[in-house]
Amino acid sequence: MKFCSNCGASVTHKIPPGDSLPRYVCDACNTIHYQNPKIVVGCIPEWEDRILLCRRAIEPRYGMWTVPAGFIENGETTLQGAARETLEEANARVDVGPLYALYNIPHLSQVYILFRARLLDSDFSAGAETLETRLFREEEVPWDEIAFATVRNTLKHFYDDRSQGEFRLHVGTIERAGRQPGT
Amino acid sequence: MKFCSNCGASVTHKIPPGDSLPRYVCDACNTIHYQNPKIVVGCIPEWEDRILLCRRAIEPRYGMWTVPAGFIENGETTLQGAARETLEEANARVDVGPLYALYNIPHLSQVYILFRARLLDSDFSAGAETLETRLFREEEVPWDEIAFATVRNTLKHFYDDRSQGEFRLHVGTIERAGRQPGT
Repeated sequence: MKFCSNCGASVTHKIPPGDSLPRYVCDACNTIHYQNPKIVVGCIPEWEDRILLCRRAIEPRYGMWTVPAGFIENGETTLQGAARETLEEANARVDVGPLYALYNIPHLSQVYILFRARLLDSDFSAGAETLETRLFREEEVPWDEIAFATVRNTLKHFYDDRSQGEFRLHVGTIERAGRQPGT
Repeated sequence: MKFCSNCGASVTHKIPPGDSLPRYVCDACNTIHYQNPKIVVGCIPEWEDRILLCRRAIEPRYGMWTVPAGFIENGETTLQGAARETLEEANARVDVGPLYALYNIPHLSQVYILFRARLLDSDFSAGAETLETRLFREEEVPWDEIAFATVRNTLKHFYDDRSQGEFRLHVGTIERAGRQPGT
């Protein structure tokens, strides 16, 4: 950020009075421009014993597989966002179910919020940001080609939980240096 | 938003090519300025059979009671944010525990993420944004003076769950028109 979005003047990165962290503050109108982490919402769409994955047609991780997920929009709930992303990326309609995983990614200032979901029909196809969509059985999941640690961890928990007959919430943090599987 | 924070030129609210929603787009450098929901993180700090509440010294809801909570900062996890807010608002140190509630507030473009937490000691006091901090037994909670529907719902669930001996995750949505208790 170099200019004030309110008045167009230059901004200075400094700690405002009464605050404890540096912010972008307008040199003219004194507007403080806070910057906050973004939420990525998504789901694991299930169809019988299979799950729907999407192969990415965009960076980062072009060509890798992921669950449908993306940035939540203003004015929508996390569940609505997860359903919208599934429609956009896989042209698939889902009934969004329980919250399943919350991952903190502090070095990217992101929080992933992932739900379990049920595909309403088996009609799906690649959206504009997707090369290919496919239903996978557990033994078919391309573990070495999963786009993100959040998704890989979540899918591992999903199959562990499913084999034990009980799905529980998973909360974890992905550190810059490597992967922490969370709980 | 009236000006581009990247180059200072004017912006136009329009749907960018390939997008489906209007965004602020710079008339000069074409930067797209996305705006996304913000995350409020907080916790219910427990001390034996009591919980710590804070009476707000700021708007909105000046003078009303709430749990320690506030906007998450870039670079921190939801748990770190909940602990930091508790330190800032109540000068209290907590061990942040399980995720307890996630509330969508789509008309404010906010998502509340609240944890259970344990006070590490009984040394606390009002922070800069707080008039008063106090430990409350269940029968002492000032239900008519709770600042936000999210907090009121979460505390009701907390006491219901505690009486049944099992705490479970609650996910809900607060609509503009009124309150929905969630699940």
